[in-house]
Amino acid sequence: MVRDYNCGSEAEAAPRTTPDRVTRSQQSAMSSKRSKPEVRFRLRITKGDAIAIGPGKTDLLEAIAKTGSLTSAAKALGMSYRRAWLLVDTMNQCFREPVVTTTSGGARGGSTVLTELGLEVVRRYRHAESAALSGGKRDTDAILGLLR
Amino acid sequence: MVRDYNCGSEAEAAPRTTPDRVTRSQQSAMSSKRSKPEVRFRLRITKGDAIAIGPGKTDLLEAIAKTGSLTSAAKALGMSYRRAWLLVDTMNQCFREPVVTTTSGGARGGSTVLTELGLEVVRRYRHAESAALSGGKRDTDAILGLLR
Repeated sequence: MVRDYNCGSEAEAAPRTTPDRVTRSQQSAMSSKRSKPEVRFRLRITKGDAIAIGPGKTDLLEAIAKTGSLTSAAKALGMSYRRAWLLVDTMNQCFREPVVTTTSGGARGGSTVLTELGLEVVRRYRHAESAALSGGKRDTDAILGLLR
Repeated sequence: MVRDYNCGSEAEAAPRTTPDRVTRSQQSAMSSKRSKPEVRFRLRITKGDAIAIGPGKTDLLEAIAKTGSLTSAAKALGMSYRRAWLLVDTMNQCFREPVVTTTSGGARGGSTVLTELGLEVVRRYRHAESAALSGGKRDTDAILGLLR
């Protein structure tokens, strides 16, 4: 059932038993023999069933900071305005103060910006990710050394 | 659009604009005001599109180690045998040596066990997760302090 065959061209030539279908990720594992492995820690802080902050929400906050608009940020991330709005709304409920605020009026209409708290959450989140990578490096390097 | 309203009972009484529907995660964010927040780093090591090791695969390896059977491990995790088999197969292709091996024969038939390499991957993976938590603690504590 579990066989010891080589990755790469030999694997494709090797007789396959069940299941016959080769998945996309398996094909990729075979074809990307020399592709550089990647280590990633994804941080999520949950409160009950709600994700207060995670990778998607952080990407959204950064996109809002960059574009000054929830509509543009949603578009840049390929998500619906409604979904972006719900993510922001959940964050605004989970944190002590809103992470995002809307300035109305002005010549070109209102814009959406991160609050001080929103900026701090993003900064801390990205820093926590880097610190996690550093913290786990000894073990993740050891795992990388066990890959083909 | 983005409003500054309180979490908890006030939030539910507050007038809501678009969108009207309150999602499960939002209800949860409101109702679980005092539930303890959780910080989690999920580690994934990818090679091309394949995940060499991640949370699901590590859980599976641990379940195999515990049960001595791929069938039992799959059942314990609520996944199909086929899916468990594919996850093991991907790992066996990504690592230098198989993470799992099957001993055939014997009075009660064969059993599935982790190889030395499989055991090391699990140990390193769990240790990397703990080290990541420690490494990121200063920043995640700061974020926790910003939650309601």
